[in-house]
Amino acid sequence: MIFLDAAATTPVRREVLEAMWPYLSGEFGNPSSHHTLGEAAASALAGARAAVAKVLGCRPGEVTFTSGGTEADNLAVKGIALARQAADPALNRVVISAVEHPAVEESARYLERFHGFAVDVVPVDGTGRVTPEALAAVLRPETALVSVMYANNEVGTIQPVAELAAVATGRGIPFHTDAVQAAGWLPLDAKALGVDALSISGHKLGAPKGCGVLYVRGRTRVEPLVHGGGQERGRRSGTENVAGAVALATALTLAHAERPEFAARVAGLRERFIATILDTVPGALLTGHRTERLPSVASFCFPGTSGESVLLELERQGVVCSSGSACAAGSDAPSPVLTALGYDAEVAQTAVRFSFTSAVTADELEQAAAAVGTAVGSVRTLGR
Amino acid sequence: MIFLDAAATTPVRREVLEAMWPYLSGEFGNPSSHHTLGEAAASALAGARAAVAKVLGCRPGEVTFTSGGTEADNLAVKGIALARQAADPALNRVVISAVEHPAVEESARYLERFHGFAVDVVPVDGTGRVTPEALAAVLRPETALVSVMYANNEVGTIQPVAELAAVATGRGIPFHTDAVQAAGWLPLDAKALGVDALSISGHKLGAPKGCGVLYVRGRTRVEPLVHGGGQERGRRSGTENVAGAVALATALTLAHAERPEFAARVAGLRERFIATILDTVPGALLTGHRTERLPSVASFCFPGTSGESVLLELERQGVVCSSGSACAAGSDAPSPVLTALGYDAEVAQTAVRFSFTSAVTADELEQAAAAVGTAVGSVRTLGR
Repeated sequence: MIFLDAAATTPVRREVLEAMWPYLSGEFGNPSSHHTLGEAAASALAGARAAVAKVLGCRPGEVTFTSGGTEADNLAVKGIALARQAADPALNRVVISAVEHPAVEESARYLERFHGFAVDVVPVDGTGRVTPEALAAVLRPETALVSVMYANNEVGTIQPVAELAAVATGRGIPFHTDAVQAAGWLPLDAKALGVDALSISGHKLGAPKGCGVLYVRGRTRVEPLVHGGGQERGRRSGTENVAGAVALATALTLAHAERPEFAARVAGLRERFIATILDTVPGALLTGHRTERLPSVASFCFPGTSGESVLLELERQGVVCSSGSACAAGSDAPSPVLTALGYDAEVAQTAVRFSFTSAVTADELEQAAAAVGTAVGSVRTLGR
Repeated sequence: MIFLDAAATTPVRREVLEAMWPYLSGEFGNPSSHHTLGEAAASALAGARAAVAKVLGCRPGEVTFTSGGTEADNLAVKGIALARQAADPALNRVVISAVEHPAVEESARYLERFHGFAVDVVPVDGTGRVTPEALAAVLRPETALVSVMYANNEVGTIQPVAELAAVATGRGIPFHTDAVQAAGWLPLDAKALGVDALSISGHKLGAPKGCGVLYVRGRTRVEPLVHGGGQERGRRSGTENVAGAVALATALTLAHAERPEFAARVAGLRERFIATILDTVPGALLTGHRTERLPSVASFCFPGTSGESVLLELERQGVVCSSGSACAAGSDAPSPVLTALGYDAEVAQTAVRFSFTSAVTADELEQAAAAVGTAVGSVRTLGR
């Protein structure tokens, strides 16, 4: 099997399993317990937090462990907007981009339904980018928060996050970025990016499902999503998933150390893969930005096919990929991301996304490219 | 070390580690992905859900996996109350008992702070029990939800949940119970209990930290806590923690099968332990109900000491236990639970809780009882 669906999830790395193992076995303490078992767990958690902080270039107290990227996005969008509204009721708008993950979009819609917020959606250009001018145009004195993702999960387009953050924060508006797809592939220094909040998911970078991180800058106030015993400095209650936190910290640290080397290598392989597909598959369209894209994502539309049929053909040939986000797999509705980029519904439903782990090889991508040609041809011939 | 702090957390059982292992290694698919890897993960998740449903005597669709007991409590209290209020704005009160875990209490306070709810607190008697009469007295036409825990985490008192649920549901008010401490020790059949919602935590019964379950009956509407891709039938978004779900299902199934035997055995050991402490430690007070208590919990106050000092002495003698809930460990404030039972602050701060796993032995408890006598005597002598 050639696994080209790493944007959906990734295998847990061996080093990560080894690092988390003690906290699934002998070191099972509750970090809140005041005895040696508890203290060992608290110490592991503190170590994990410090390791994450090192990668993000922030203080350990600015790192909140969550149950995943979706929870981190929810905590950022709802938590910061609600805390700001509580301090100043006039702050009752949030800005999101037109290509956000549902974790951000649905959080904004929740604020609309239950807390009287209005949601301003900033459009993207045909490559999926938000321009600083477009963002500036939707900001208002009542804007409580801006949330624009770092890199898109369907087409891989990278946003100019530092520029966008500067536009928002220059007006005193906190800026959150969903870095779930970016983590492991792009620089994550929170200060350099100038963001106030940043979300990461463990299972997208070699840690297990069920762990994530939200960075929140300094004294930014956040209303918790999960209330209770006051863990995570009161930002996220519930007994901490110690093994998950250690796993995420280990995976993030490894990815950060290896990134300079593997990001360039994988970007090179991606370029060759894109060129081959565009050269050999008639009518193939690259979606997203030509160059400002994740090293790990190549996304296309193949007009005249059905994305789902191409996927089935590819899987028969041993190539596993997806039509877009896993969250929307099986949905008949055209991708809102491709729609936002200007594709009509008929073309949008022919989308196929190839996403790579850092271990992807040139040989795998050559085989995959050949399989794509065969699959698209076969689906077109069969008229599906 | 004699580990008598199982109400804080438990070691992961070997069978649980074995069951979850495939989903931390080769079977790493995202359950939402429409290819073989994803389908294997979805199938594992469905199996885990069916197993949990079997123990709870409910349909698989009534089981929502969460990141833990605290999240399950938050989802139940906020989710049901908000969905009811959205359907009928007159429903703007929630009822909780005076001895709820902070996960329930702080969720109710959030409803008060952000959604205009009033919180009615139903008192407990000196044993920690809510009587059906006391509950009936606080219900109003505007009550959106009642939440009363199954068994208390500090003193082990078991509530008459079926009777209390009948009082609420008889008036058309949904009833939630936090069964985090009860799970593994008490019957969990949701229909027999008559509850509309019930929370369980994995790490209290031999699964790892970071997994939990919320049972929600039939068509009870629940506003999600975590919004996004619509996983868990729209009740809880975010890529599912497959390994955690399998772990929880395995631990719950094992505990359920073994309960008839070990609950009786451990209750017998607990009785002997309580009798020994009351006989040999001058002035020792048993807190909570004499008989209606978890088989696994023995809790005392030792007037004239400080709970923290007794704990330190006990740990020196190799006995690990706690002053009350792990969440409150290290806090100087007297336990709100003991305060609600009528203890004054001075006595409440002398509390020590002993909580057992199902593997506890008579020999361990004999040693522990002797250590308690020594520790209490020593602390009293030293005047701390």
